[in-house]
Amino acid sequence: MSVLVVGSLALDSIETPFGSAKDKVGGSATFISAAASYFNSPIRLVGVVGGDFPQEGIDFLERRNVDLEGLQVIREGKTFRWAGRYHYDLNERDTLSTDLNVFEKFDPVIPEKYRKNNIICLGNIDPVLQRRVLDQLEKPRFVVCDTMNYWIERKNEELRETLKQINVLILNDSEARLLSHEPNLFKAGRTIRQMGPSVVIVKKGEHGALLLTDQLVFSAPAYPMENIFDPTGAGDAFAGGFVGWLARTDDMSEENLKRAVIYGSTLASFCVEKFGVDGLADLTYLSIQDRFRQFRELSRFDED
Amino acid sequence: MSVLVVGSLALDSIETPFGSAKDKVGGSATFISAAASYFNSPIRLVGVVGGDFPQEGIDFLERRNVDLEGLQVIREGKTFRWAGRYHYDLNERDTLSTDLNVFEKFDPVIPEKYRKNNIICLGNIDPVLQRRVLDQLEKPRFVVCDTMNYWIERKNEELRETLKQINVLILNDSEARLLSHEPNLFKAGRTIRQMGPSVVIVKKGEHGALLLTDQLVFSAPAYPMENIFDPTGAGDAFAGGFVGWLARTDDMSEENLKRAVIYGSTLASFCVEKFGVDGLADLTYLSIQDRFRQFRELSRFDED
Repeated sequence: MSVLVVGSLALDSIETPFGSAKDKVGGSATFISAAASYFNSPIRLVGVVGGDFPQEGIDFLERRNVDLEGLQVIREGKTFRWAGRYHYDLNERDTLSTDLNVFEKFDPVIPEKYRKNNIICLGNIDPVLQRRVLDQLEKPRFVVCDTMNYWIERKNEELRETLKQINVLILNDSEARLLSHEPNLFKAGRTIRQMGPSVVIVKKGEHGALLLTDQLVFSAPAYPMENIFDPTGAGDAFAGGFVGWLARTDDMSEENLKRAVIYGSTLASFCVEKFGVDGLADLTYLSIQDRFRQFRELSRFDED
Repeated sequence: MSVLVVGSLALDSIETPFGSAKDKVGGSATFISAAASYFNSPIRLVGVVGGDFPQEGIDFLERRNVDLEGLQVIREGKTFRWAGRYHYDLNERDTLSTDLNVFEKFDPVIPEKYRKNNIICLGNIDPVLQRRVLDQLEKPRFVVCDTMNYWIERKNEELRETLKQINVLILNDSEARLLSHEPNLFKAGRTIRQMGPSVVIVKKGEHGALLLTDQLVFSAPAYPMENIFDPTGAGDAFAGGFVGWLARTDDMSEENLKRAVIYGSTLASFCVEKFGVDGLADLTYLSIQDRFRQFRELSRFDED
């Protein structure tokens, strides 16, 4: 199986209590692809950048063995830009500015050879674009989708249409409550499953993640991070680790979905240790396996 | 080993979105003793009530095999009363009134036969009273202590003195942050361990609990509750299940502390299924074991 990633490529300007960076290569597709690349290759990426996207961004993706045939480069345009500032406890952030630029008129075109044999990971973009991607793909297909409060609030009907066509929805706890109008996360999961996806994953930041299906509640612990350098991209790294493992194993059983959640958590924990995508630049499969096993120890107990 | 519980006995008036009750038998010592009683008997209770404490409260404790030799009854006084209202999402509550009554002049006296061979569970009371209890007990002793934001804010120095003499501190996540001035829970745990207790347990409500020692991070999942009827006493039930298991096994190893945290979580999950202490009235050891095993399934995953 291959992984097909559709999402944003961005230049991020980030302020955290520990430092700041301007025009750092980022975007959901970048983080997802980099994380997934440790499990499966090549990663098929569909996205758009302007003429100002730096060569180092292209070099980074190529080093991670990401196939860029689906990357549109609009020479005369500017790359999507996001600027944000994290608070001291890193659980909250303010978006300072969002400039869609070339993303405003993005029309994803899926290259012919990408249209089958994929796990599809739809990064956090307009649900209309997400559906336009799905319309170009052969069935059967396995679709993992991310979203955010912005689309839940402003494109709710469009999002609900997209949800009917996906298998797994990944979102955070406040987004799950917002989408379902249900404060209890287990009830929220059931309400969202009734909207389409048979699997809902609720990311809870420092509290770990929940994997919810009709049969299963799986509670994944959080890795004990004492120093989070930059939370940007953690959710995308989670999605990338998750789809990467599923593509590597081609096994969608509930037991394997659990492992995929732990691999997602593992990649997210590496991501936040450095600025931007730097945390996903130089991992080894051994170091990933080692942290996966540490996750087991975190929640393991014996009966007697 | 026996369990010695010191704490409040109260008459609670509770409003939740699902119902309300007036002058319901409660208090930290009541919940702790009831929960611990499923593991170990008899439970030794030290506390105070007024002449208005209902016979059904005494009957409940005696049915749970709680030794009441240490219960002071002030015939002419009134029992401690607490009134509170829970919000729709049950994570927040407003205290409507607190009437200390006989608790205001409570001077805990530990009966002679209670002074050794105990695990001591200090319920959430004034840290000065907690220390007055410890002064009466023979060493060596194993002390598990609960506290709350009220004491952290208003009796900080007294609390810090008490912390020097205990082994395990149980508190919730916001209290851990308040006590340590540290938003990161793993750092908060280390800061608090430097104050005295070698073990810190952070309760995180719907997100489970953390067991933190110098060597160990253990992340316990939360039981997937779709319907929480009344959260009152959940924290005390947790403490009771925790100390009950430790007393039953007389094993303070880290592996066994993990199990004790799961038994604490188990008793807390039963507690919130009914109003007041009703959820702790008619359990069986088999039903507790069964839920303990369900906790294992919640976080279990295999490597491949």
